[in-house]
Amino acid sequence: MKFTVNRTAFIKELNDVSRAIAARTTIPVLTGLKLVADANGLTLTGSDSDISIETTLSIADETASLNIEDTGAIVLPARFFSEIVKQLPDQTMTVEITSGFQTTITSGSALFTINGLDANTYPHLPEIESTNSVSLSADTLRQIISQTVIAVSNQESRPILTGVHFSFNGNEFAAVATDSHRLSQRRVTLDAANVNKADLIIPGKSLNELAKMLENVETVEMQVTENQVLFSLGKTLFYSRLLEGNYPDTTRLIPTESDIQVTFNATELLAAINRASLLSHESRNNVVKLEISETGSKITGNSPDVGQVEEALNVKNYDGNALEISFNPDYMKDALRSFGNIDIEVSFTTSLRPFILTPVENKESFIQLITPVRTF
Amino acid sequence: MKFTVNRTAFIKELNDVSRAIAARTTIPVLTGLKLVADANGLTLTGSDSDISIETTLSIADETASLNIEDTGAIVLPARFFSEIVKQLPDQTMTVEITSGFQTTITSGSALFTINGLDANTYPHLPEIESTNSVSLSADTLRQIISQTVIAVSNQESRPILTGVHFSFNGNEFAAVATDSHRLSQRRVTLDAANVNKADLIIPGKSLNELAKMLENVETVEMQVTENQVLFSLGKTLFYSRLLEGNYPDTTRLIPTESDIQVTFNATELLAAINRASLLSHESRNNVVKLEISETGSKITGNSPDVGQVEEALNVKNYDGNALEISFNPDYMKDALRSFGNIDIEVSFTTSLRPFILTPVENKESFIQLITPVRTF
Repeated sequence: MKFTVNRTAFIKELNDVSRAIAARTTIPVLTGLKLVADANGLTLTGSDSDISIETTLSIADETASLNIEDTGAIVLPARFFSEIVKQLPDQTMTVEITSGFQTTITSGSALFTINGLDANTYPHLPEIESTNSVSLSADTLRQIISQTVIAVSNQESRPILTGVHFSFNGNEFAAVATDSHRLSQRRVTLDAANVNKADLIIPGKSLNELAKMLENVETVEMQVTENQVLFSLGKTLFYSRLLEGNYPDTTRLIPTESDIQVTFNATELLAAINRASLLSHESRNNVVKLEISETGSKITGNSPDVGQVEEALNVKNYDGNALEISFNPDYMKDALRSFGNIDIEVSFTTSLRPFILTPVENKESFIQLITPVRTF
Repeated sequence: MKFTVNRTAFIKELNDVSRAIAARTTIPVLTGLKLVADANGLTLTGSDSDISIETTLSIADETASLNIEDTGAIVLPARFFSEIVKQLPDQTMTVEITSGFQTTITSGSALFTINGLDANTYPHLPEIESTNSVSLSADTLRQIISQTVIAVSNQESRPILTGVHFSFNGNEFAAVATDSHRLSQRRVTLDAANVNKADLIIPGKSLNELAKMLENVETVEMQVTENQVLFSLGKTLFYSRLLEGNYPDTTRLIPTESDIQVTFNATELLAAINRASLLSHESRNNVVKLEISETGSKITGNSPDVGQVEEALNVKNYDGNALEISFNPDYMKDALRSFGNIDIEVSFTTSLRPFILTPVENKESFIQLITPVRTF
């Protein structure tokens, strides 16, 4: 294998692929970056066995100025190779297997020789057939991920809850996550209606990594098999394993009726909850209290050691009885952030029952649910 | 005590004073911020007993819009108070001692009540008489600090070496630091010649904090007592304790003659050393090798596990014999960075003796010395 490439173009691909590569893993070859040079171009692959990312620099890509002198394949130590590539002196670099798996990297007057690994020992990526395919706008997908992934569980006691449940039915797409204290649900109607029925649970960690790669992408093609999902982002392929098992039926968790509805500006309420949480964070039980009545609403937080805070809230609309309810302010902050600067409606039944946050407009499309904390 | 103040102006002073406040300390009152309101303005004090910072907002300062309704003093939990102040909703805030040491902070609709401490229990700042005073340009002082503090020791086995040795003699000012493996020495001729002879050793940690505060300052007034130094930066006072003991005589460490002189561009050499250190960092003994001869110079680094690197160096001028010398690349990187993008001369005697780096112009003013590593 021997190729010369523009360093800036190469680093861009290298950064994407590196997202999948773990510093430590039980499979040593996975700390490496796989490079394959063939007649068409150069393929970079990284994987931590949960996520795999593969991207191809084409010989037709002018900015890459890729010149393949000899085809071949090698696995190079990823973190170390990345550091080298980023510090090379010249605009271009040449990578060449010299003998065995020993590989030289030359650029300007610098010559590195590093020990690679046999590319044949690198695990094969899953083969995914393209029968079950969905096309999504990258912006929409990124928004859906950011709005739901906040509610995934980070506890391994119920692994299924560490994922987001994606379900497709005709052109209806729903994403739900819950850690059993809170729940986020987003619904979207897709443009294209040629979608098969599909149910999948994608690890939250995979979706967080995927979201970071969606910024300069327009459309994402999604393909699903029994235990893998593939997102195609142009020339870059993002694979994730799926979580196995049945996701709990979340529809019955969401209250369909409420006795009290209060409208707030999400950004204003977020700032007030932030301030109240300064106190609750100093206390052993991280709880703030919301009091709602016709005469006014306020949020309070306190820590016996440090002090207390109370703040009158600006209520835009109010319908129902008076209520005192306590909750974890960090759940509320995550939920409020996911709406951006819009007006939201918060719907309560009693101080012991979950309450929901929805946009004032288009309530069905997006629900954040929070379970209150019982206080005495 | 009761005062109202513009929050932005207050936060600026709070940030400066907070530099001195440690999160954990054996003296609990020092986790606090001391506030004193008197007829002239509001004084903020923070200290970790090594460094103390005091700053005053004057009632004459228009941007601060400071209004003192009642004079008085209190100590408030610093980290927590800072977080509150930064998240308050309104442009102004009011701080008031309501009963005992309980203090309210109000801004817009938010009302915080926090438990303060008796300001009388706060340690007094050192009293410094103004007989021994030096005036310095803030830019020069910042440069001197950044060029020398890199060489202070971070080991407590010889505490005196954790400081930078400042000496004044007439209008000659010298700053020296060494950790016994390397040494940095900077000399400056001061404009004002009315300087007394003075010798002091300032902890490197104090100088690092001071340097961060010098950005928007023009002139610094420095006053010294037996065990304290005070830097006056306009309305802000920065106190540091001095290290006690005699600083070793460093003049005899610096070779006055050399057999080999090589001129490099500091930035180019830094980049090459950076690349070579990628390999040496993977090795147990972190060493790179420089080879100089009439036919060319090169730097090499290697790690038995990972690989090796070699790079031809661009030598601008060369005088003397051939030489092979090994050293810690991290010391070299610190030293090279301190010169900026200029041409420097590196002067060697043998591969076992310390070598020095100086600017090509004005060699006496600035010396970096590095002790080589013996290799076999």
